[in-house]
Amino acid sequence: METSLLNRIDHVGIACHDLVSAVAFYESTFGLAVVSREMNERQGVTEVMMRDPDAAPGTSYVQLLEPLRLDTPVGRFLERRGEGIHHIAYGVSDISAALAVITGTGVRPVNPEPQPGAMGTSIVFLHPKDVGGVLTELVQAPPPA
Amino acid sequence: METSLLNRIDHVGIACHDLVSAVAFYESTFGLAVVSREMNERQGVTEVMMRDPDAAPGTSYVQLLEPLRLDTPVGRFLERRGEGIHHIAYGVSDISAALAVITGTGVRPVNPEPQPGAMGTSIVFLHPKDVGGVLTELVQAPPPA
Repeated sequence: METSLLNRIDHVGIACHDLVSAVAFYESTFGLAVVSREMNERQGVTEVMMRDPDAAPGTSYVQLLEPLRLDTPVGRFLERRGEGIHHIAYGVSDISAALAVITGTGVRPVNPEPQPGAMGTSIVFLHPKDVGGVLTELVQAPPPA
Repeated sequence: METSLLNRIDHVGIACHDLVSAVAFYESTFGLAVVSREMNERQGVTEVMMRDPDAAPGTSYVQLLEPLRLDTPVGRFLERRGEGIHHIAYGVSDISAALAVITGTGVRPVNPEPQPGAMGTSIVFLHPKDVGGVLTELVQAPPPA
């Protein structure tokens, strides 16, 4: 029985105009390595997960995000604020249970149901207006293969 | 020998107007627990580190930040952007060595030398203009007691 709903920071999402040059920067300047690279049509992004190549399992990722189109959440974020940190994502054991508890306190989800995220995860976003200006994501890992 | 300069996400800094209510929100809504609470005059903030009370050592923190005055970096951030994610901080093994490598690639530090951070750490910030709009911090843990 876990006492916390949020187990850990799963990743931090960073919006950028040019994923190729952003990935090259995080590789060459910071020594991070690409773990996955996916297009997510529903979220309107191409997303690259990176971290220390020697990191232990469960270590948080940096997620670089480039919008697929201007009329997407990340496209509008870039237009409004420019490049920068877009959201924080927390790992949860049971996304439906966590979402029920959290929405029970009055925090609104952006979508009513979890959706597919990177690397087989299930994700749901919480409304930044209800989380002190922070776009907050819950992430449940895929079941073990 | 580590191949990456940045070992892991140490914490994500979140700027807020009212630390007491922000801490209460992260406790009651998300189940996180306060690990440390400190005033840092040089950074111009009161900072609270939180995470899952059951987290393993080395798990990333959420850092809630309230400015001590309006004319501080976090005070100006709040005035300009409102509450939200302020910075991302990465753990490094040797902050001086990491800073030398990173500045050697042309990324400018905000301060020339590491400064005291929360819980006995040494910290240095990198200029967001050189890191794709992301205020980026390096954190070296204190030596073992």
